[in-house]
Formats: sequence, structure tokens, C-alpha cells
Amino acid sequence: MDPVSVIALASIITAGITLAIGCFGAALGEARAGAQALQSIAQQPDEANSITRTLFVSLAVIESSGIYCFVLAMILVFANPFWNWAIQSAGG
Amino acid sequence: MDPVSVIALASIITAGITLAIGCFGAALGEARAGAQALQSIAQQPDEANSITRTLFVSLAVIESSGIYCFVLAMILVFANPFWNWAIQSAGG
Amino acid sequence: MDPVSVIALASIITAGITLAIGCFGAALGEARAGAQALQSIAQQPDEANSITRTLFVSLAVIESSGIYCFVLAMILVFANPFWNWAIQSAGG
Amino acid sequence: MDPVSVIALASIITAGITLAIGCFGAALGEARAGAQALQSIAQQPDEANSITRTLFVSLAVIESSGIYCFVLAMILVFANPFWNWAIQSAGG
Amino acid sequence: MDPVSVIALASIITAGITLAIGCFGAALGEARAGAQALQSIAQQPDEANSITRTLFVSLAVIESSGIYCFVLAMILVFANPFWNWAIQSAGG
Amino acid sequence: MDPVSVIALASIITAGITLAIGCFGAALGEARAGAQALQSIAQQPDEANSITRTLFVSLAVIESSGIYCFVLAMILVFANPFWNWAIQSAGG
Amino acid sequence: MDPVSVIALASIITAGITLAIGCFGAALGEARAGAQALQSIAQQPDEANSITRTLFVSLAVIESSGIYCFVLAMILVFANPFWNWAIQSAGG
Amino acid sequence: MDPVSVIALASIITAGITLAIGCFGAALGEARAGAQALQSIAQQPDEANSITRTLFVSLAVIESSGIYCFVLAMILVFANPFWNWAIQSAGG
Amino acid sequence: MDPVSVIALASIITAGITLAIGCFGAALGEARAGAQALQSIAQQPDEANSITRTLFVSLAVIESSGIYCFVLAMILVFANPFWNWAIQSAGG
Amino acid sequence: MDPVSVIALASIITAGITLAIGCFGAALGEARAGAQALQSIAQQPDEANSITRTLFVSLAVIESSGIYCFVLAMILVFANPFWNWAIQSAGG
Amino acid sequence: MDPVSVIALASIITAGITLAIGCFGAALGEARAGAQALQSIAQQPDEANSITRTLFVSLAVIESSGIYCFVLAMILVFANPFWNWAIQSAGG
Amino acid sequence: MDPVSVIALASIITAGITLAIGCFGAALGEARAGAQALQSIAQQPDEANSITRTLFVSLAVIESSGIYCFVLAMILVFANPFWNWAIQSAGG
Amino acid sequence: MDPVSVIALASIITAGITLAIGCFGAALGEARAGAQALQSIAQQPDEANSITRTLFVSLAVIESSGIYCFVLAMILVFANPFWNWAIQSAGG
Amino acid sequence: MDPVSVIALASIITAGITLAIGCFGAALGEARAGAQALQSIAQQPDEANSITRTLFVSLAVIESSGIYCFVLAMILVFANPFWNWAIQSAGG
Repeated sequence: MDPVSVIALASIITAGITLAIGCFGAALGEARAGAQALQSIAQQPDEANSITRTLFVSLAVIESSGIYCFVLAMILVFANPFWNWAIQSAGG
Repeated sequence: MDPVSVIALASIITAGITLAIGCFGAALGEARAGAQALQSIAQQPDEANSITRTLFVSLAVIESSGIYCFVLAMILVFANPFWNWAIQSAGG
Repeated sequence: MDPVSVIALASIITAGITLAIGCFGAALGEARAGAQALQSIAQQPDEANSITRTLFVSLAVIESSGIYCFVLAMILVFANPFWNWAIQSAGG
Repeated sequence: MDPVSVIALASIITAGITLAIGCFGAALGEARAGAQALQSIAQQPDEANSITRTLFVSLAVIESSGIYCFVLAMILVFANPFWNWAIQSAGG
Repeated sequence: MDPVSVIALASIITAGITLAIGCFGAALGEARAGAQALQSIAQQPDEANSITRTLFVSLAVIESSGIYCFVLAMILVFANPFWNWAIQSAGG
Repeated sequence: MDPVSVIALASIITAGITLAIGCFGAALGEARAGAQALQSIAQQPDEANSITRTLFVSLAVIESSGIYCFVLAMILVFANPFWNWAIQSAGG
Repeated sequence: MDPVSVIALASIITAGITLAIGCFGAALGEARAGAQALQSIAQQPDEANSITRTLFVSLAVIESSGIYCFVLAMILVFANPFWNWAIQSAGG
Repeated sequence: MDPVSVIALASIITAGITLAIGCFGAALGEARAGAQALQSIAQQPDEANSITRTLFVSLAVIESSGIYCFVLAMILVFANPFWNWAIQSAGG
Repeated sequence: MDPVSVIALASIITAGITLAIGCFGAALGEARAGAQALQSIAQQPDEANSITRTLFVSLAVIESSGIYCFVLAMILVFANPFWNWAIQSAGG
Repeated sequence: MDPVSVIALASIITAGITLAIGCFGAALGEARAGAQALQSIAQQPDEANSITRTLFVSLAVIESSGIYCFVLAMILVFANPFWNWAIQSAGG
Repeated sequence: MDPVSVIALASIITAGITLAIGCFGAALGEARAGAQALQSIAQQPDEANSITRTLFVSLAVIESSGIYCFVLAMILVFANPFWNWAIQSAGG
Repeated sequence: MDPVSVIALASIITAGITLAIGCFGAALGEARAGAQALQSIAQQPDEANSITRTLFVSLAVIESSGIYCFVLAMILVFANPFWNWAIQSAGG
Repeated sequence: MDPVSVIALASIITAGITLAIGCFGAALGEARAGAQALQSIAQQPDEANSITRTLFVSLAVIESSGIYCFVLAMILVFANPFWNWAIQSAGG
Repeated sequence: MDPVSVIALASIITAGITLAIGCFGAALGEARAGAQALQSIAQQPDEANSITRTLFVSLAVIESSGIYCFVLAMILVFANPFWNWAIQSAGG
């Protein structure tokens, strides 16, 4: 295969796999934190405020892992330096 | 295989795998959060409101992981920059 | 293999795998939520209404993951842009 | 291999794998819900009616995942657009 | 390999794998439901009737997953449209 | 390889794998049901009759999964339509 | 490879794998049933008779799975119809 | 490879794998039964006799799985009908 | 493939896999720590301050693992010494 | 590869894998039985004699699985009938 | 492929995999230690000081595993003796 | 590859894998027995002697599995009959 | 590939995998010991000294496993006898 | 590849894998024993001496598994009889 095909092939597959695994982990993690928050509220309703606050902090930190993967996937699809180089040298 | 086939092949497979894994994780996560909410309501009926509110926040955050994967799958199928380039250079 | 065969091959397999994994996750998730609802009703019969309502919301959100996969599978089988392009250029 | 063989090969294998995984998940899910219903009836016999009703709703939703996979398998075996195109162009 | 061999190969293997996975899931699911029924009867002997009735409903629904796979396996072995087409075009 | 070898190869391997997986699942399932029955008898000796009856029903349903696989294996080894066609066309 | 080698290769490997998996499942299942019987006797010594009787029934049913696999393995090694055909046509 | 090498290769590997898996399962199963017997004796010393008797029955049944695999391995190494045929036709 | 393609291929895939696995682990770890913090606050509300402080330290240390992987991925995509050498020698 | 190399290759690898898996299972099984014996002695010191006796029986039966594998490995390395035939026909 | 490509390929992939696995383990380990510290503080608030001190020691030791992997990854990317030799002999 | 390389390759890899798996199992098994002994001593200090004695017996039996694998590895590296034959026939 | 490339390839990959697996195990092990120490301090604060001392001994022994792997990785990268021989014979 | 490369390749990879798996098992095992010792000390402080003594014996036995693997790895890297033979016959 020519370099252009190789790089396109790798970029598409990598973007998908990276986003899939990253989101899989983030979904499981957020579910764990959210489920525990629900349990804690049921157990100690008076602390609902501080539990909710801690939950939001946790969700934000966990979500950041998914965001990193999403950013890399977008870079690979829309702003890929390898691809730019490849179509530039193929078109040159 | 020519570049067009390679890119189409990779796009189709990646779209499917990404969406499948992302939805698998989202479904498991939402099930965990939802099941815990049901348990918490049974345990502490008086807090049903705050439990439901926290559940909806959690479901929204978890669902966002599935949405990311769905967006990438749609981009790969309907607005794929690699495919546009490939059919453009094949047709040129 | 010619491009038409490649794209048909990838579309068929991807549609099946995507739907299978998506439905597998949805089935497990819905089973978890449903089983927990049954347990909660047995534990707190007086809250059967709010438990059932929360269960339906959860089932709907979880089912949406399966629906996404079903939609992608249908797109790949009946409205596949790559396939349309391939048979168009093969017939041209 | 010629396109006809490729498409037939992919259709047969995909139909089987999709149905197998979908039914596997549905069977496990229905077993989980059913087992929990049995446990709940033993625990709270007075609520047998609402437990049974919720069980049937859950079984129906879980079964729908298996039905989706069954439908796709039947489409691939008996109403496959790729196959129709292939034998049409092979016979043309 | 010629198309006839390919289709026969795929049909035999797919029939076996589909039936095996489907029966594996059904056996595990039925065992789970049956074991839970035995436990519930021991725990609440007075409800043996409604437990048995719910068990039979659950077993029927779970068994349906195995039946779907059995039907597909029989179709692939004895009434396979791809095979019919293949031996027809090979004999023509 | 010629078609006869391919079909013989696939039939032998599929018969073995199908029977093995099916019996594996059936053995695990029957063990689970049987173990639970033993536990239930020890817990509630007065209900030994209804427990034993429910156990036999469960064992029969679970065993049916193994029987399906056994039937398919026997069909593939002794009454295989693909094999009959293959040796018929090879001998013709 | 010639058909005789292919069939011998497949028969030997399939016989071994089938027997191994079938015996693995049977051993685990029988161990589970046996261990539960030991626990039940220790818990309810007065019911040792009915426990032992139920154990024997369970062991017999579980062992039948292993026997099926053993039978298939013996058929493949000593009374293999494919092998008979192969050495007959090779010697003819 | 010539048929003699193929059959020898398959026989050696299959004998080893079959014996290994069969003994693995038997060892785990016997360990489970034995450990449970030790626990039961500690819990109910007065029933040591009937526990030991049941343990021996269980061990014998579980060991039979390992013996089946051992027998097949010995057949494949020392009394292999395929091997006999192969060296006979190679030497003929 | 020429060296440029090889290095681009390896860089893209490695960046994605590394980031995906690293973020997966970080997400699971942060979820575990966050869920435990929620549980601890519900259990001992008076210690919410020291629990929150310890949680932030733990999240920072866990997040550092994800950051390492993100840094490597960025180095591989935007400041890859192997790639610089390859396009330099390819362009020279 | 010539038959001698093939048979030597298969014998060495099979001997190692068989022994490794068999010993792995035996080690885990013996550990389980031994650990349970230690727990039982701590729980019921007066029965140390019958516990130790049962432990030794169990260890002997479990060890026999490892011995079977060891015997097969030694046969394959030092008294391999296939190897004897191969070097005999190679030297003849 | 020429040696330069081979070494670059191996260095990039190995650096990523090593860092990913190392960070995955470190993240899980630190999460376990951190979660346990949170639980211990909630259980025994008076010992928060010694718990925090022990936690920091544990985190440092666990983090060292991740650091080792990070160091190796940096060596492979920026100070790789094999790569230096390869470009030196390629340029010589 | 020539027979000498094949046999050396197989011997080295098999020795390593066999020893690794065997030691892995032995280490896990000994850890389980040792941990249980520590727990038993803490639970019943008066029986430390008989616990320690049983522990040593168990460790010896478990260690024997590792020793078997070590012996086979040493045989394959230093007293390999296949290797001796190979270098003898290569040098002859 | 020439011997130099082969040895460099194997050394780089092996160094990375060995260090990664070794550190993964060490991190998990240290986390387990550290978490247990935190729990023990919370449970028995008066024994903090002897617990901390035992923890440090355990951490040192566990860390030694990681150190072994680190040493081997460094040997493979910086003092590899195979590599020294290869570049010596390549340069000779 | 020539014999020298093959043997070097196998030796390097086997040394790494063997050491990695062996250390992985040893680290997990030692962590289990160490964690249990910490728990036992917290539970029964008066027996700290005999617990520590038993812990050291267990650690020594478990560590021996890792040492075996380390010894084999060192033999393969620095005193490999196959390598000595290979460079001797290559240099002869």
C-alpha cells in the first residue's frame, strides 16, 4: 500500500479504538462513582450537599480521561500531521 | 487493494467497533447507576427526589461517553475527510 | 478482491458484530436494572410506583444504546454510502 | 474468491455469530431477571402480582435485544441486498 | 476453493458454533433460574405453586433463545438458500 | 484442498467443538441446579419431594441443550447432506 | 496435504479437544455437586440418605455429558466414517 | 509435510493437551471436594464417617474424567490406528 | 513499506493505544478512590475535610499516570525524533 | 522441515506445556486443600488427626494428576515411539 | 525492512506499551491504597496522621514502578543505543 | 531452518515457559497456604505447632510441582536427548 | 532480516515487556500490602510500629521482583552480550 | 534466519518472559502473604513473633520460585550452551 493509504488506515482505526476504550473506562468509572453517591445519599441524607459536591469533582476528573482520548481522536481525524505530510508529498 | 477500498474498509469497521464498545460501556454503566438508584429509593424513600436528581446527572454524564462514540461513528460514515480525499483523487 | 466485495464484506460483518455487542450490553444492563427493581419492590412494596417509574427511565436510557447500534446496522445494510459509491463506480 | 462467494461466506457467518451472541446475552439477562423474581416472590409473597408484572415488562425489553439480532440474521439469510446485487450482476 | 466448498464450509461451522453458544447460554440461564427456584421453595414452601409457575415462564423464555439458534442451525444445514443457489449454478 | 476434504474437515471439527461446548454448559448448569437442590434439602427436609420434582424438571430442560448439540454432532458425522453431495459429485 | 492426512489430522485433534473440554466440565460440575453434598451432610446429618440419593442422580446426569464426549472421541478414533471413506478411496 | 509427520505431530500434541486439560480439571475438582470435606469434618466431627465415604465416591467420579483423558493419550501414543495405517502405507 | 510509512504507522497506533490504556486505568482508579471517598463521607461526616484532602492527593497521584501517557502520545504525534529523522532522510 | 525435526519439535513443546499445565493445576489444588486443612485445624483442634488423614488422601489424589502429566512428559522426552521410528527410518 | 525501520518500529511500540502497562498498574495500585486510606480515616479518625504517613510511603513505592517504565520509555525514544548505532551505520 | 536450529529454538522456549508457569502456580499456591497459616495462628495460637507442621507438609507438596518443572527445564537445557542427536548427526 | 536487526528487535521488545509485567505485578502487590497495612493501623492503632516494620519488610521483598526485571531490562539495553557479538561480527 | 540469530532471538525473549512471569507470580504471592501477616498482627498482637517467623518462612519459599526463574534467565543470557555451540560452529 502507498503511504497515504497506510496513514489513513492507521488514523481511522486508532481514532476509533482510542475513543472506544477511553469512553468505556470513563463510563464504567462514572457509573461507579455515581452509584456510590446514590448509595451514600440514601445512607446519610443530611450530607447530600457535600456528597454531591465530591461527586461532581470526581466526575470531572474521570471525564477528563475520556476527553483526552476524544481530543486525540479529533487530532487524528481532522488535524493529523502525518496525513498532512503524506498528502503534501503525494501531491507534490 | 486500492486506497479507496482500504479507507472504506477501515471506516466501516471502525465505526461499528467504536459504537459497539462505547454503547456496551454506556449500557453497563447506566444499568449500574440505575440499579443503585432503585435500591436507594427502596432503602430511603423520603430521599427519592434528590436520588432521582443525582441519577439523572449521572446518566447524562455516562451517556455522553456513548454520544462521543456515536458522533465519531457518524463522522466516519457520513463526513469522513479521508474518504472525501480518496474519492476526489480517484475521480480526478 | 474488488472494491465492491470488500465493502460488502465489511458492511455485513460490521453490521452483525455491532448489533450483537450492542444488544449483548443492553440485555445485560436491562437485566441488572430489572432484577434490582424486582428486589426493591419486594423490599419496599409501598414505593412500587416510584420504583417502576425510575425503572422505565433506566430501561429507556439503556435501550437507547442498543438502538444506536441497531440504527448503525440498518444504515450499513440498507443505506450505505460507501456501497452506493462502489456499485455506482462499478456500474459506471 | 469471486464476489458471490465472499458475500455468501460473510452473510452465513455473520448471521450465526450475531444470533449466537444476541441470544447468549438475552438468555443470561432473562435468567437474571427470572431468578430475582423467584427470590422476590419467596421473600414477599403478597407482592406476587406486581413482581410478576414487572418481570414480564423486563423480559419483554430484554427479549427485544434477542429479536433485533434474530431479525438481522433473517435479513442476512433471506433478504440480503448485497446477495441480491451479487447474483444479479453474476447472472447478468 | 470453489464457491460450493466455501459455502458448505461456512454453513457447517456456523451451524455448530451458533448452536453451541446458544445452548451454552440457555443451559447456564436455565440453571440459574432453576437453582433459584429450588432455593425459593426451600425458603418459602407455601408459595411453591406461584414459584413453579414463574419458573416455567422463565424457562420457556430462556429456552426460546436456544430454539432460535437451533432453528438457524437447521436452516443452514437443511434449507440453506446460499447452498441451493451454489449447487444449482454448479450443476447448471 | 478438494471439496471432499474441506467438508470432512469442517464436519469433524464442528461436531467435536459443538458437542464439547454444549456438554460443558450442560454439565456446569446441571451441577449448579443439583448443588442447589442438595443445599435446599438440607435446609428444608420436609420439602424434599417438591424440591426433587423441580430439580428433575430443571435437569431435563438443561439436558435438552446438550441433546441439541449431540443431535447436530451426530447429523454432521453420520447424516451430513453436504458430505453426501460431495462424495456423490466426486464419485459421479 | 492429501485427504487422508487432513481427515486423520482433524480426527485426532478433535477427539482430544472434545474429550478434554467435556471432561473438564464434568469434573468441575461433579466437584461442585460433591462438595455441596459434603456441606449438606455436615449441616443436616439426619438427611444423609436423601442427600446421597440426590447426589448420585446429579452425578449420573453430569457424567452423561462427559460420556457423550467420550463416545464421540471413540467414534472419531475407531469408527470414523470419513476416515473409512478416505482410506477406501485412497486404496481403490 | 508427508502424512506420517502430520499424524505424529497431531498425535503428540493432542495427547499432551488432552491430558493436561483433563488433569487440570480433575485436580481443581478434587481439591474442591477435598477442601469441602475438611471443612465439613471440622464443622460436624461426628459425621466424619459418612463425609469420608461421600468424599471417596466423589473423588472416584471426578478422577474418572482424568482417567478418560489419560486413556485417550495412551491410545494416541501407543496404539494409534491412524499411525499404524500411516507407517504401514509408508513402508508398503 | 518505506521507512516513513512504517514510522508513521507505528507512531499513530502507539499514541492511541498508550493513551487509551493509560486513561482507562486512570479512570478506573479515580472512580475507585472517588467512590470510596463518597462512602467515607457518608459514614463519618465529621471528617469530611481530611477525607476530601486525602482524596485530592490520591486523585493527583493517579492522574499523573494518565498524564505520563498523554505526554508520550503528544511526543509521538508532534515531536517524534524518529519521524523527524525519517522525513529528513527521505527529503534529503 | 523433515519428519525428524517435526517430531522433535512437537515432543519438546508438548512435554513442557503438558507438565506446566498439569503442575499448575496440581499446585493450585494442593494449595486449596492445604489451606482448608489449616483453617479446619484452627477451627476444630480436637479433630486434627482425622483432618490430617483426609488431607493426605486428598493431596495424594490431586498429586496423581501432576504425576500423570510428568509421566507423559518423560515418555515424550526419553521413550518416544514416534521419535524412535523417525530416527530409525532416517538412519535406515 | 531495513534495520533502521525495524529498530524505530520496535522502539516506538515498546515505549508505548511499556509505559501504558506500567501506568495502568500504578494507577490501579495507587487507587487501591488511596481508597483504603479514605476508609481507614473514616473508621479511625484519631489515627489520621499515621494513616496519611503510611499512605504517602505506599504511594511513593508504587509510583516508583511507574517511574521505572517511564524512564525506559524515555530511554527508548530519546537515548536509544540501538538507534544511535543504526543511524550511525546507515549514515556511514 | 535446519534441525539443529529448530530443536534449540524449541528447547529454549519450552524450558522458559514451563518453568515460568510452574513457578507461577507454585508461588500462588504457597502464598495461599502461607497466608492461611498466618490467619490460623492468629485465630488459634495454641495450635501453632500443628499448624506449622501441616504448613510445611503442604509447602513441600506444592513446591514439588515447581521442582518437576525446574527438572524438566534443566533437562531441556543441559541434557537434551534431541539436541544430542541433532548435533551428533549435524557433526557426523 | 540480518542478525543485527533481529537481536536489536528482540532486545528492545523484551526489555519493555519484561519491565512492564514485572512492574505491574510489583505495583499490584505493594498496593495490596500497603492497603492492608492502612486497614490494620485503623483497626489496631497500638500496633502501628510492628505493622509498619512488617510492611517495610514486605515492600522490600515485593520490590525485589520489580528490581530483577529492571536489572534484566538494563542488561538487555546497555550490556547485551548477544548485541555485542552481533555488532562485532557485523563490523569484522 | 541463520542458527545464530534464531538462538539469540529465542534466548532473549525467553529470558525476559520467564523472568517476568516468575516475578509477577512471586510479587503477587508475597503480597498476599505479607498482607495476611499484617492483618494477623492487628488481630492477635500477642502472636507477632510466631506470625513474623512464619511469614519469613513463607516469603523465602515463595521467593525461591522467582529465584529459579532468575537463574534460568541468567543462564540463557550469560551461560547458554546452545549459544556457545552456535557461535563456535559459526566461527569454525
